[in-house]
Amino acid sequence: MKPIQVGLLGIGTVGGGTFNVLTRNQEEIRRRAGRGIEVTMVADLDVERARSLVGERARVVADAREVIANPEIDIVVELIGGYGVAKTLVMEAIAAGKHVVTANKALLAVHGTEIFEAARARGVMVAFEAAVAGGIPIIKALREGLSANRIEWIAGIINGTTNFILSEMRSKGLDFDVVLKEAQRLGYAEADPTFDIEGVDAAHKATIMAAIAFGIPVQFDKAHVEGITKLQAADIRYAEQLGYRIKLLGIARRRDSGIELRVHPTLIPAKRLIANVEGAMNAVVVQGDAVGTTLYYGKGAGAEPTASAVIADLVDVTRLHTADPGNRVPHLAFQPDALANTPILDIDQVRTAFYLRLQVADEAGVLSRVTGILAEHGISIDALLQRESAEGEQNTDVIILTHDTIEGPMRKAIAQMQALPTVLAPIVSLRKEELA
Amino acid sequence: MKPIQVGLLGIGTVGGGTFNVLTRNQEEIRRRAGRGIEVTMVADLDVERARSLVGERARVVADAREVIANPEIDIVVELIGGYGVAKTLVMEAIAAGKHVVTANKALLAVHGTEIFEAARARGVMVAFEAAVAGGIPIIKALREGLSANRIEWIAGIINGTTNFILSEMRSKGLDFDVVLKEAQRLGYAEADPTFDIEGVDAAHKATIMAAIAFGIPVQFDKAHVEGITKLQAADIRYAEQLGYRIKLLGIARRRDSGIELRVHPTLIPAKRLIANVEGAMNAVVVQGDAVGTTLYYGKGAGAEPTASAVIADLVDVTRLHTADPGNRVPHLAFQPDALANTPILDIDQVRTAFYLRLQVADEAGVLSRVTGILAEHGISIDALLQRESAEGEQNTDVIILTHDTIEGPMRKAIAQMQALPTVLAPIVSLRKEELA
Repeated sequence: MKPIQVGLLGIGTVGGGTFNVLTRNQEEIRRRAGRGIEVTMVADLDVERARSLVGERARVVADAREVIANPEIDIVVELIGGYGVAKTLVMEAIAAGKHVVTANKALLAVHGTEIFEAARARGVMVAFEAAVAGGIPIIKALREGLSANRIEWIAGIINGTTNFILSEMRSKGLDFDVVLKEAQRLGYAEADPTFDIEGVDAAHKATIMAAIAFGIPVQFDKAHVEGITKLQAADIRYAEQLGYRIKLLGIARRRDSGIELRVHPTLIPAKRLIANVEGAMNAVVVQGDAVGTTLYYGKGAGAEPTASAVIADLVDVTRLHTADPGNRVPHLAFQPDALANTPILDIDQVRTAFYLRLQVADEAGVLSRVTGILAEHGISIDALLQRESAEGEQNTDVIILTHDTIEGPMRKAIAQMQALPTVLAPIVSLRKEELA
Repeated sequence: MKPIQVGLLGIGTVGGGTFNVLTRNQEEIRRRAGRGIEVTMVADLDVERARSLVGERARVVADAREVIANPEIDIVVELIGGYGVAKTLVMEAIAAGKHVVTANKALLAVHGTEIFEAARARGVMVAFEAAVAGGIPIIKALREGLSANRIEWIAGIINGTTNFILSEMRSKGLDFDVVLKEAQRLGYAEADPTFDIEGVDAAHKATIMAAIAFGIPVQFDKAHVEGITKLQAADIRYAEQLGYRIKLLGIARRRDSGIELRVHPTLIPAKRLIANVEGAMNAVVVQGDAVGTTLYYGKGAGAEPTASAVIADLVDVTRLHTADPGNRVPHLAFQPDALANTPILDIDQVRTAFYLRLQVADEAGVLSRVTGILAEHGISIDALLQRESAEGEQNTDVIILTHDTIEGPMRKAIAQMQALPTVLAPIVSLRKEELA
């Protein structure tokens, strides 16, 4: 049978990896797919560089539209990134009847509903395993492997840059700014790291996973997003003393009143497997009502890990492109006419436990006032740690771990505590999840 | 559309779980599959008990052949287990044109080639996600999620009973016999635990994974199988001192000369994620050339985790049963005409590192003779630990960790060391893998 012909839009890191892995493993892949899969056309603005990468094996053009217009091309792989030209080209490829494989989490988290509807109407597939957690087949696990389950929650380390930074901060006791510079020097963080360190990239991925897990449309604008830039080394140390690690988690959780969708630094018990995921690695924990807890771990970025996911999608599309569209796995796991309009909860309505650090004057009655305020708001205390003040020190740190509570009342309690004259510095508050 | 009709053969633990999860999550599953999936018929010798479980919702019969003969039944789920009647019924179901879902690892590891060929010839699917690692979608990950990769190796904790026992032996410092009794009392081990503790169950699963990973037929008879019954608490302690944990691993590894397929207790670095998988949990590490290291973790047994895998297969079959068989994922991941005849290596040809414990006379020259023998066989030493002998003791333990070596020469070296008059007890040898 004639090989499936693939056109790459963009041959940067992931595009180059995809081309190389497809070439290196072509025999292995053909033995699996029952048919060859070949990149026969590449569009990249830097034509010279693209030509030096692919040699004679594919035609290189500057204009992506030449790829889309080529009737020989079966599948278009979009590796340009961002919401702009990538969106236009994906929509044009769909309109031209091409199947699309993309690693573009930003595009899908923001415009997924429009893109998937266009693909459905045109009878083509948009596959995006590479958009979440790189080489880990988490989209397939959620969409197919766990299809028996009512998913209860997902919690993932889905941004390698921030996990590398947090691992270094903890193991070396360093501050955020110092480690960020080191991460940039080593290539773990980009020159402009904003999307990573502010949690935006993780929120894109969490948005996509939430949609697939709960059968809701992608709603990035409803996600609560906090990064790690304000995290202090002191809190990582205190957390450790209490048996916790701090990770930037993307969390999606089903509640009776709606869906929680949030990205923020989170204390998790050090004994959990996911707490021990270090460096730039990714891991996602999925809790299903039948299967219980499952975890998926691997590299979340990089040329070949991401290419692994892109090519798995190419194999899937190759297998299914002649099948009745009704037999395909729906883009968001649930049939398009069966999506739910379950609301995404406001952060004030979220239920979670808290870690609080208060710098207080070392005098009688302080703890009683602080705990009194928490009690007024119905917030119960799980653990309390008061650092002994050193000789001559006038103030001390009080660390409080609460039980699960609603965030709105917690914020009010924190504001009241902050107003106490004996509370000497801004209160640090972090969310804590047991993940059990 | 009319619901897909499923017939269960056997409604024990997993069958009951499957029935309950399908009933409880029917709406969620229908929203995903686009079609209802209903158990309409159950065959079980204990008709009364089966009726009390399913009530009016399914017809209960004693004779499995009534299910197979029913033209309304689309998919037969075999949950009887074993090689005997289960094999006959699976072959009959295939002959009757039914798709089959099974959790029967023993059957597939031994008779898989015959069964898959019959299914191919008849144009039906045999799905078996539940046969390996319970609720973890590892078959799907290997067969589809990692299809871009040349798989290098797989190492899995794929038997919950033995992992529970090893976890207890380590954390409580107890001997095997004591913990086995405790495991039986708690329901983690069966009354006749032979298949679990002798490594046979793990070898069934490793055999299936090896076939899928490397595109070779299932060859259970070629697997090297060792259990945990001879493991001593002392070696778990020494391993810990050296920074290792002992786990019963199923290992499949590609070498230039063939495939290693083996199950045995294995020292692995304590810092690896899989070393921290405790209790009855399962985990599988897969190393692919593009994706690098990935890990999959979850419950490997139990009613609902296993049902999660059975039902995921039901959804997959529901989606694909009207599709062209050429578009389906091949049973063993590779197209049936593209399987390789790569040999399974004899254990003597396997390459691995070793942990040796020698009880030796506490006198001059012993170490020199022992290390001399290793050197003669070209085996290099990675680490050596000599326990200080207590006051008045005449003998001491010497622990040696070797670098990777071929097992054949290692066995010869061990025999020579054993013959030394200063070696006072049977030498303990365990394999060690870095899993990196």
